[in-house]
Amino acid sequence: MFRQAGFLISTNSRSYFPAVNDPELSIVLMRAQEIPRYVSEGVLDAGISGFDWILENNADVVEVADMVYSKSTAKPARWVIAVAENSDIQTVADLEGKRVATELLNVTKKYLQSHGVTASVEFSWGATEVKVPELVDAISDITETGSSLAANKLRVIATILETTTKLHANRSAWDDPWKKEKLENLSILLQGVLLAKSKVGIKMNAPEEALAAILDILPAMKLPTISKLVDSKWVAIEAVLDETQSRNLIPVLKSAGAQDIIEYPLSKVIP
Amino acid sequence: MFRQAGFLISTNSRSYFPAVNDPELSIVLMRAQEIPRYVSEGVLDAGISGFDWILENNADVVEVADMVYSKSTAKPARWVIAVAENSDIQTVADLEGKRVATELLNVTKKYLQSHGVTASVEFSWGATEVKVPELVDAISDITETGSSLAANKLRVIATILETTTKLHANRSAWDDPWKKEKLENLSILLQGVLLAKSKVGIKMNAPEEALAAILDILPAMKLPTISKLVDSKWVAIEAVLDETQSRNLIPVLKSAGAQDIIEYPLSKVIP
Amino acid sequence: MFRQAGFLISTNSRSYFPAVNDPELSIVLMRAQEIPRYVSEGVLDAGISGFDWILENNADVVEVADMVYSKSTAKPARWVIAVAENSDIQTVADLEGKRVATELLNVTKKYLQSHGVTASVEFSWGATEVKVPELVDAISDITETGSSLAANKLRVIATILETTTKLHANRSAWDDPWKKEKLENLSILLQGVLLAKSKVGIKMNAPEEALAAILDILPAMKLPTISKLVDSKWVAIEAVLDETQSRNLIPVLKSAGAQDIIEYPLSKVIP
Amino acid sequence: MFRQAGFLISTNSRSYFPAVNDPELSIVLMRAQEIPRYVSEGVLDAGISGFDWILENNADVVEVADMVYSKSTAKPARWVIAVAENSDIQTVADLEGKRVATELLNVTKKYLQSHGVTASVEFSWGATEVKVPELVDAISDITETGSSLAANKLRVIATILETTTKLHANRSAWDDPWKKEKLENLSILLQGVLLAKSKVGIKMNAPEEALAAILDILPAMKLPTISKLVDSKWVAIEAVLDETQSRNLIPVLKSAGAQDIIEYPLSKVIP
Amino acid sequence: MFRQAGFLISTNSRSYFPAVNDPELSIVLMRAQEIPRYVSEGVLDAGISGFDWILENNADVVEVADMVYSKSTAKPARWVIAVAENSDIQTVADLEGKRVATELLNVTKKYLQSHGVTASVEFSWGATEVKVPELVDAISDITETGSSLAANKLRVIATILETTTKLHANRSAWDDPWKKEKLENLSILLQGVLLAKSKVGIKMNAPEEALAAILDILPAMKLPTISKLVDSKWVAIEAVLDETQSRNLIPVLKSAGAQDIIEYPLSKVIP
Amino acid sequence: MFRQAGFLISTNSRSYFPAVNDPELSIVLMRAQEIPRYVSEGVLDAGISGFDWILENNADVVEVADMVYSKSTAKPARWVIAVAENSDIQTVADLEGKRVATELLNVTKKYLQSHGVTASVEFSWGATEVKVPELVDAISDITETGSSLAANKLRVIATILETTTKLHANRSAWDDPWKKEKLENLSILLQGVLLAKSKVGIKMNAPEEALAAILDILPAMKLPTISKLVDSKWVAIEAVLDETQSRNLIPVLKSAGAQDIIEYPLSKVIP
Repeated sequence: MFRQAGFLISTNSRSYFPAVNDPELSIVLMRAQEIPRYVSEGVLDAGISGFDWILENNADVVEVADMVYSKSTAKPARWVIAVAENSDIQTVADLEGKRVATELLNVTKKYLQSHGVTASVEFSWGATEVKVPELVDAISDITETGSSLAANKLRVIATILETTTKLHANRSAWDDPWKKEKLENLSILLQGVLLAKSKVGIKMNAPEEALAAILDILPAMKLPTISKLVDSKWVAIEAVLDETQSRNLIPVLKSAGAQDIIEYPLSKVIP
Repeated sequence: MFRQAGFLISTNSRSYFPAVNDPELSIVLMRAQEIPRYVSEGVLDAGISGFDWILENNADVVEVADMVYSKSTAKPARWVIAVAENSDIQTVADLEGKRVATELLNVTKKYLQSHGVTASVEFSWGATEVKVPELVDAISDITETGSSLAANKLRVIATILETTTKLHANRSAWDDPWKKEKLENLSILLQGVLLAKSKVGIKMNAPEEALAAILDILPAMKLPTISKLVDSKWVAIEAVLDETQSRNLIPVLKSAGAQDIIEYPLSKVIP
Repeated sequence: MFRQAGFLISTNSRSYFPAVNDPELSIVLMRAQEIPRYVSEGVLDAGISGFDWILENNADVVEVADMVYSKSTAKPARWVIAVAENSDIQTVADLEGKRVATELLNVTKKYLQSHGVTASVEFSWGATEVKVPELVDAISDITETGSSLAANKLRVIATILETTTKLHANRSAWDDPWKKEKLENLSILLQGVLLAKSKVGIKMNAPEEALAAILDILPAMKLPTISKLVDSKWVAIEAVLDETQSRNLIPVLKSAGAQDIIEYPLSKVIP
Repeated sequence: MFRQAGFLISTNSRSYFPAVNDPELSIVLMRAQEIPRYVSEGVLDAGISGFDWILENNADVVEVADMVYSKSTAKPARWVIAVAENSDIQTVADLEGKRVATELLNVTKKYLQSHGVTASVEFSWGATEVKVPELVDAISDITETGSSLAANKLRVIATILETTTKLHANRSAWDDPWKKEKLENLSILLQGVLLAKSKVGIKMNAPEEALAAILDILPAMKLPTISKLVDSKWVAIEAVLDETQSRNLIPVLKSAGAQDIIEYPLSKVIP
Repeated sequence: MFRQAGFLISTNSRSYFPAVNDPELSIVLMRAQEIPRYVSEGVLDAGISGFDWILENNADVVEVADMVYSKSTAKPARWVIAVAENSDIQTVADLEGKRVATELLNVTKKYLQSHGVTASVEFSWGATEVKVPELVDAISDITETGSSLAANKLRVIATILETTTKLHANRSAWDDPWKKEKLENLSILLQGVLLAKSKVGIKMNAPEEALAAILDILPAMKLPTISKLVDSKWVAIEAVLDETQSRNLIPVLKSAGAQDIIEYPLSKVIP
Repeated sequence: MFRQAGFLISTNSRSYFPAVNDPELSIVLMRAQEIPRYVSEGVLDAGISGFDWILENNADVVEVADMVYSKSTAKPARWVIAVAENSDIQTVADLEGKRVATELLNVTKKYLQSHGVTASVEFSWGATEVKVPELVDAISDITETGSSLAANKLRVIATILETTTKLHANRSAWDDPWKKEKLENLSILLQGVLLAKSKVGIKMNAPEEALAAILDILPAMKLPTISKLVDSKWVAIEAVLDETQSRNLIPVLKSAGAQDIIEYPLSKVIP
C-alpha cells in the first residue's frame, strides 16, 4: 500500500527497520499488537494498527484516519465470544465461573466485568479457536466471515467490538504542526490508494445525441468529464466508477450508444 | 479473468464452490471435461469449457461466445493423431487394427469410424504422449505448438478438430430472458477483458499541423479521440492500439511530431 | 522489460533460445559476462549487458543506449577494491605483492598496473566477498549500496569503475541501415519502459479560476494537457509526474482546488 | 520401496521410462488405473496396482502378491457409496433412478445391477466427493479413514469392495519359468521391505539367571537368537519385534534384568 | 521423536488433535508457553515443554524427565538480559527506571524484584532482539549460542535462568498408579530415543590375540559383547559408542587388528 | 557425508565458514574450481574437489584418497569434446581454426595443443552445452551419462579426461606428521562412509546342516561371522554384502534353509 502511495520501502528479508525513499520518514515493522503501546508512549510518532489493539493497550492516541476499503462492500472484523455448538452456554451470563481463552485479554476481561460476569480469562498464544471445548469453555476471537468459527464447530454468543485498521498518532506528535501536516498528507495518499482499489477509470466516445441518456446512467456522483471532439458530433466521456458499478453499467452504456468503452486501473483516487 | 471483469471470487484453497460478490451468480469449479455434461443436463445453467469437451460429451448446448484472445495472434489448439516418427503408419487408413490411446475417447472413435477405420481406441488417464510406441501404436492428443509432440519424437498424421474455449449455456436457461440477458452481459464483460489483453491505451500531444500525418499513421480503426488544448495550437490524441501495433508505431509517431507519448494498460475494451 | 515494450518472449524453462513475436528478432539468453564478447565477434548483432563486462572482454562495440531508470534516484553500481576492516592496507599502493580475488580479472589487473602496483590477481568463481582475509588480502567486487560489503566487515579503498547496463551493437551491424534503425526503435521502446517505471499519469478536474495556481504547482516540464469541459466552468488537467513528485504534489493540488484527482500507472513514456 | 529392495531407479523429472540397475528389468511409470489393462493385454509382463483397478479393467491377470504393510495395523481402503448426510437415501435400493458419480465406473455399475438398481452412473474426472448434493445424488469413492467423507458431510450407505495393492502378472508371462522365478524373487524382496516397515531389531545383554524371564516376555515367535558371551555369566539376546511390541516390551524387559537394550532399524525382514 | 519411540502420530495439516496408534494416549499439539498451565490446572495429565514456561506459568507440576540429548555436547538454552553493545547499562542495577521487553514477563519481573530493581517490563509479541535500543533499553530473551544476540549488536549483562525441555505431569495424575507407570514407560522410551541420537552401534571381527588390545581401546563403559566364532580363532566384538568416540576410535581399532568394522545407526538405547 | 563420518557441521544459510564439532578441524565451503588452487598455494591444508580442477589449476598437490562409491557400479565423469550432431567435424583434427567454449580452459587448450590443433578456446560461464552451433563450433564439457549432450543434439568426438573426486593435500601439510595422520584418519572415515553406501548388513538363522550350503552361496569375501546359538542345533550367520548381491542372494539363501533373514542399513564399513 505504501508502494502504491509513492513510498519505496526496501526491506531486507530480516530487517525490521526498512529503508524508505523519503528522508522525512523512519519506518519500523512491528506486530500490530505492540504498535499502539509504543505510539502512546511516544517511542513512535504514529502507527498503523487495529482499533482492537489500541483498546487492548489502553493507548491514549489520536485517530488520524480509518483505513478501510470501500465502505459499501467491506465489513469490519469483529471480536466475538464463541462456545461449542452443542454447549449449554447460551448467553454471556452463562459464562459465570467458566474459563475463556483469548489473545485480547484486557478488552475481554472488561467486557465480562461490564456484564457482571466473573470468569477466568486466560491469555492464548494462538490457535485459540481449537481450544473449545477440550481446554476451555469459551473463547474470545476475531472473525471476518465466521467461516473459521463454523469449521471448528463454534457458536457465537456475543460480539465484543468491531475493529478496523487505524492510522493513529501520539498526542504530542499531533501537536507539532509539521508532524501533523506530514501525517495528514500521508493519510490523503494512503486513503487515495485504498479508494483506488475499489474503483476503475472508464472512458467512452458517444454521439452528442446519446449524451443525455449516458449521463442519466452514470451514477449520481460528481460530474463526469466530458470533452467535445474536434470537428465532429462526438463527445468523449470519462468517469471513475466503483468496480462493481462498472460491471453492471458497461452493458447498459453500450446499449445507450456508447462506443469504444475502455476501462483502466487506477493507483490513487482523491475525491 | 473474472477478477478483471469485476467479479471478486474468493476461493478457499480446497473449496470448489467459491464465493462471488454478485448475488445473482453461483460458481462451481470443475474439470473442463465434465462441465458441458452438467450444462447439457441442466445441473448448471452455463459453463466455460473447450469445444472439444462439448463434442466429447455429445452435449446439446447453446454457444454464447468464443473466448479467444486476439484473433490475429492466437492459434486454436488442435487434437491430432500422432505416431512415432519412425513408424510405418502414414495415413489414417494405416491405423486399421491398431491401438490408439486418448483422453478424447468418443470424438476419436467417431473420427476413425467416419474414415472407415476399425481400431482399438483406449481411454488414457494422462501422459498420453509417452505411450507411443511402447504401449500403443498411435495417440490422439491435444497440441498447441507441437513442441511436446516433437520432444516425444511423434509425427502428426491427421488433425481431428480445432478447439477454443466456449461460454456455453443450457438450452432451457437460454430460453429464460433474465438468464439470457445475464449471460449476454457476462459475455460482454469477459470478451472486454480478453480484448484488453492484446490492447494498450496510448496518448500523445501534437501541434495541429502534425495532426494529419499522425492520423494517417494510426490504423484504420474507429476515429481516435482528438481534443483541442486550451489556449494553444496543440491537440491531444488518444487511441487504443494492438500491443504489437503500438510497438511498431511509437517510433513512427515520434518522427511525425508527436510528443509526450504515454502508453497505459487497459482492463477492458468494448468496441 | 521486453514484455512491457510489446515483445512477447516465450521461454521454456530450460531453453536459451526463446521465441519472440517479432519475426525480425532472434533472442539468445546468455550470461552478462559473455554477451559483449559475442557481440564484438559478430556472433550477435547486439546485446544488453553491463559496461563492466564490455571492458572486461575488451569488446569493441557501439553503445546504443544507457538502460538506466530515473537519473535522479538510481545510482550506478561500482566495482571497488575492498579489504578487511582491520587490515593494514589503506591505499591501492599497499596492495603491492598482495593477493586479490575478483570476477573482473582483466579490468582489475589493468587498474593495478595503471597505478604501478604488482599484485597477484586471481579469478574468483563466486562468493568473492567472504574470501577476505582468510584466503586473499583484498577483493575487487561489485556493490550497489555497500551493505553486503559491510555485512562481511570489508572496507573500500578504491573505486575501479562505475557501471550501468548498456544496449550495445556490433560495429558492422550498426553500419547496416536496417539493423541500425531496428536497434534505434528498440532503444526508444525500452527507454520508454524504463522511464515509465518512475512516472505516473495524473488527472484532475478544477474550476477555471484555480487553473493558474495549479499550473504553478505542476513542475516546470512540458505543458500539461488542459481541456475545457463541455458546458461548464471546469477544466480537466492531465500530466505525467515522477512518482515521488506525485506523492508530494497531490496534497498541494488538493489544497489549490483540484478535485477528483486520479493517478494511474503507465507502461511507456516517450518524451 | 524398490530402492530399499535393492533396485536403484533413476528417474529424470519427466521420464516415464526410468533406468534401473538390473539389466533383467524394464520399468514403466504409469497411472494405477491403466496398469492392469496393459498387463492383461500382454504389453507389460507384470504390474503393481490396486485390486480395484484390476476389477475395473476386467483384467484377467495372476495375483503374485498382496503388497500390504503389517496385517495387524493397516486397514485396506474401501470403495463406498456415499450420499449427503441429510439425504433421504438410506439404502442402495433408494438409488433407483438417481445419478451417481465415480471414477470406478464399471465396478460401480455392476454393483448396482447386482442389487437390481437402475441408476445413471457417470464418470467423474476427480474431486468426486464435492459433487454431492449439488451435481449428483450419490458418489462411489475410495476412502481409508472416512475423514474426507466426513469433512464433506457425506454418509456411507454401502461398501462396494475392499482393495489392496497387488503385484500381478500377465498369464503368459507367468507360464514362462524364467519370468515366474524373477517375479517370485521380486515378490520376496518387496514383501521383505514391507514387513521391515513395521519391525525393529532389538538386542540386549542379560545375566544367565534372567534369561528365562526374558524369554517369557518375548512374544511367541521363532526363537530369539541367544549367544553366550565369552568368559562371563552373561548372554546376548537378539530378536525382531513389531514396532508396537517393542514400545510395550522395552520397559518390561528392563524390569526383568535386561541391560544395554538397543533398537535399530531394519531394511528387509524375510521370515 | 515420538515416531522413533514407536508411536505413530498422524496429523492432518491443520489439526491440533492428532491421532496416535496407542488407545491409552490422547495428544494435543499446543504452544510450549501454554502447556504447563494446562498441565497444572489438570486439563492435561502431562506435557512436554521448557522449564522456562513452567516457571513463567508458576505451574505446580511434577518433573518426570529431562529431555536432553547427550549431556556432554548439548548446552541448555539460557534466558539473558541484554542491552545494546554501546549502552551505558553495565549491571542489573543499572536497569533501575528503564524499559525492558520480553516474552517471559513474570520470570523477568521476579528476577528484577529479587535484585531490588524497579523497571518497566513489557510483554513482547516477538522479534524482541531488534527492539534495542530504538524501542526499549534492554530485553530479556532466550539464546543458545549467542549468535543472534551478536548479530543484533547486543551485550549480555545477566543470565536469568537456564532451561531444558521437561516431561512434566499434573500432581493428581502422578498420584494415579496407572498414569504414573504409563508416564514412566513413556519416559524410558523417549530418553532411549534421545540417547540413541548421539550413539552408534559398532561391530568388528578380531583374532583372539588382538582382543585384549581392542578392549583397552574401547571406553570404560559396560563390557562390550564378545562372542567366539565357530571353528576359528576369531571373535566378534560389538559395542555402542558415542558418535564422536566412534570417529576417533575406528582408526585406532583398525591399527590394533580389528577387521570388517561396521557402524550402524540406532533407534533407541536403554542402558 | 561428513555428518555420517561423525562430524557435525553446522552451517548458517549464508556462511562459508561452518562450525564443526572437532576442534582440530576448520572448514571452508568453496567452489570446487577454486579449491585445488588454494590447497596448492598452502592457504588450505587439504581439500575435496575433482581431479579435473586439480589439473585445470595446475595444482601440485598430494592425492590422499579417491572418493568414489562402489567401483563396480559408478562410472567416473568425463570431459568430452562435442559438436552438433549434424556438424562436419568428425575428429579432433577437424577443430583446426574453430571456436570452442569450455569451463575447463587450460586443460582443453593443452589437449588441443598436444594434438597439434590450433583453435580458439573461450571461457564459458555456464550453459555451455547450448552454445553449439549458434555461438561456437564445439564445446568441451563434463558428462556422466551423456543424456544432457543427447538432449542438446550434440555428438562426442573425443574424451579429454576422466575425473573423480579426490581428497588432496598441500605438500607441506603432508610432510607434517600430525596433519598427515589426521588426514589419513579422515580418509578412513570418509571412505568407510562411501563404502557403506553400497553395502548392507545381513543376518540369518540356519540349522547347522544348512550351514555349508549357505556359506557356499555367500560371496568369496572375508569369512562371515558365525555363532552357535545356545542350547540348539542352530547357528546365527552375519555378513556384509553389496546391496545388489543382497538383492540376488536373499531368495537363494531362503531356498538353502536360511530363516529369519534380516537386512539393516550401515553407516560405515571399514574392511
